[in-house]
Amino acid sequence: MSATVSPLAPKHFADMPAIRGVAMATAAAGIKYKNRTDVLLMAFDRPASVAGVFTRSKCPSAPVDFCRKNLPHGVARGVVVNSGNANAFTGVKGRAATELTAQSAAAALGCAEHEIYLASTGVIGEPLDATKFAGVLGEMASTAKGDFWLEAAKAIMTTDTYPKVATRSAEIGGITVTINGIAKGAGMIAPDMATMLSFVVTDADIAPAALQQLLSEGVGPSFNSVTVDSDTSTSDTLMLFATGAAADDGQVRVNAADDPRLATFRAALNDLLKDLALQVVRDGEGARKMVAVTVKGAESHAAAKRIGLSIANSPLVKTAVAGEDANWGRVVMAVGKSGEAADRDRLAIWFGDVRVAVHGERDPDYSEAAATAVMQQEDISITVDIGLGSGEATVWTCDLTKEYVAINGDYRS
Amino acid sequence: MSATVSPLAPKHFADMPAIRGVAMATAAAGIKYKNRTDVLLMAFDRPASVAGVFTRSKCPSAPVDFCRKNLPHGVARGVVVNSGNANAFTGVKGRAATELTAQSAAAALGCAEHEIYLASTGVIGEPLDATKFAGVLGEMASTAKGDFWLEAAKAIMTTDTYPKVATRSAEIGGITVTINGIAKGAGMIAPDMATMLSFVVTDADIAPAALQQLLSEGVGPSFNSVTVDSDTSTSDTLMLFATGAAADDGQVRVNAADDPRLATFRAALNDLLKDLALQVVRDGEGARKMVAVTVKGAESHAAAKRIGLSIANSPLVKTAVAGEDANWGRVVMAVGKSGEAADRDRLAIWFGDVRVAVHGERDPDYSEAAATAVMQQEDISITVDIGLGSGEATVWTCDLTKEYVAINGDYRS
Repeated sequence: MSATVSPLAPKHFADMPAIRGVAMATAAAGIKYKNRTDVLLMAFDRPASVAGVFTRSKCPSAPVDFCRKNLPHGVARGVVVNSGNANAFTGVKGRAATELTAQSAAAALGCAEHEIYLASTGVIGEPLDATKFAGVLGEMASTAKGDFWLEAAKAIMTTDTYPKVATRSAEIGGITVTINGIAKGAGMIAPDMATMLSFVVTDADIAPAALQQLLSEGVGPSFNSVTVDSDTSTSDTLMLFATGAAADDGQVRVNAADDPRLATFRAALNDLLKDLALQVVRDGEGARKMVAVTVKGAESHAAAKRIGLSIANSPLVKTAVAGEDANWGRVVMAVGKSGEAADRDRLAIWFGDVRVAVHGERDPDYSEAAATAVMQQEDISITVDIGLGSGEATVWTCDLTKEYVAINGDYRS
Repeated sequence: MSATVSPLAPKHFADMPAIRGVAMATAAAGIKYKNRTDVLLMAFDRPASVAGVFTRSKCPSAPVDFCRKNLPHGVARGVVVNSGNANAFTGVKGRAATELTAQSAAAALGCAEHEIYLASTGVIGEPLDATKFAGVLGEMASTAKGDFWLEAAKAIMTTDTYPKVATRSAEIGGITVTINGIAKGAGMIAPDMATMLSFVVTDADIAPAALQQLLSEGVGPSFNSVTVDSDTSTSDTLMLFATGAAADDGQVRVNAADDPRLATFRAALNDLLKDLALQVVRDGEGARKMVAVTVKGAESHAAAKRIGLSIANSPLVKTAVAGEDANWGRVVMAVGKSGEAADRDRLAIWFGDVRVAVHGERDPDYSEAAATAVMQQEDISITVDIGLGSGEATVWTCDLTKEYVAINGDYRS
């Protein structure tokens, strides 16, 4: 948590309604930070359908292992999240910490341990002392409340400069349902996935398998299309819970993700995921500018995405953006290094609406002043037309500033 | 070229002997820089055997295309290198510039255009005005001299803070031969290859095919094992020329790379290539520390190298090094994101000689003070034992500092 809020932060937070079927509480356990909350409990009145997507790291954290193990059961009664310590690369001690936490949470909520989900974020490699918060979960369960989303988002922050919340509504078979989400993340952000934790809850009544498919599809153009620094966390966790409370209004349970009744729900969910993902990029460590990189004309959508990420992860592109330098030659470099098919003499590049290069060379009408004016904006779009096919993708990143170096040069100490 | 020399620069330059059969001249053509040389001509008395390795970028520069086209002819009479403009992404104008330069050089040296090799380094995307130096190549050819290596290295610098030279000697069939090399490069340095130009010349008499095989094998553990910023240039060029002058001493021409008479030559060449490659890393933009990353116990050598590069390219690892922070958790992260097989619970990690992690958790004898003492050194080694196989590789990188951001935020302007 930083004293200075990112200049790219939203001007105001979404007004987060309560979601029937879920209550939350936070506590200040002093895991790493002083004078702030660092533990979140989410409690579901009844077993909620659950879906999850996790880091692809080969060295995942103990909580990620724990969640993966529970997911096949398909139902959740509680979620415990702590910030300040990732409980990653902590060996036997790490597993013991997840077990202690799960036992305490299950006792507090009167449920089975496989109905508990866990996430930890913070420093890697230091043993997590779960006794610091396991003892207070009972009290947290008894004081949890529904109108607590912003506080929940605050408790899971690490180097974040602002809490990330979003809400949407949709209709399923004529019944209005709500989707709320929180997220944290600022550095160690790369697909797949962004280094972040995100928890999304809806009162819709949707079966676990359908929920999982919705989430797996939704993560591609959202959290898996943002990068701050190309570094993939050991802890990335995105979970979606459906409390099913809308069944009380007559919403008929949906069992299949391709059910046409899910059309507006799917759109609302995807929009919310993108909203949260972009909030993570806008809080990129040291970020001063947000960059949307769109690649079109690639051989395939996947190729377009890889080229886009090659541009978005390039330190030389990102430092040029920081310096407000319309250095499109570095975009050419990043296209060339992506490994995807490209024909230099068909490439065209735009900064904002200003075409800077076409047919493999500088645009005949190139205006340095016009390009620089684009770079001076806070939100910048870079568009590349590869000229070979119809593959298209957009990814988002931020600039690479001296502040990123400063933040990460002494984060642990 | 920077006013401040990298603190990692060699304490003194190698004493470079002349190499029989090659002469050099430089000129100040004002391509981009003021008050310094920016054009180099290398002239071979007789057709020299030639080998080359070039960028794998899908958007190579016009000179790279030109060299690739000439290489099958196998012989060189001249090399023209300019700094300040990469002649990359310059379309038809770029090809015209290479043709003009080659014509002028061929006329100056009295040889065919396919005996000329070209390289350009600097800004991408701006048309190169080759008329600025094409006219002086005749005079350069007439004043070229053999004892000019350090000056040659200076003329090809861009953001380099010092010229890079190296020399070695070897024996072929009892005859002593010499190998000299120069290189430039500081940023946009990544395999494959490092963004750099390097020209190596020997007086040995070796046939082109053998020379090519020696060079292709030598580039792997040298220039293709260093990274400054993961960004691959459009212009990377490494060339090896053999003037054959040692034939005058009785050296019998070698036609095959596996000829046992090449044993000491191969070792000397590989050592020289590594020397030059490490000089490039030590001049990494903004670098204050040099890092050797060794990965052992991987499933294969190739897997070890990919894991090593994942660590060496991680902005979070590199900023931690800049901050003298023994943040080994980020090394775990980088191993995990590499995509290669890893078993968290078998990993061991050393900073220098200090083992910081073993069996998937912090070393029981971990000493923060000892680890920090390693990080305060100028030269740092990071060793990771994956614990799965016998694959091993070492790659080299530098730290990521605020100066890197500053240098690249306003390089072009």
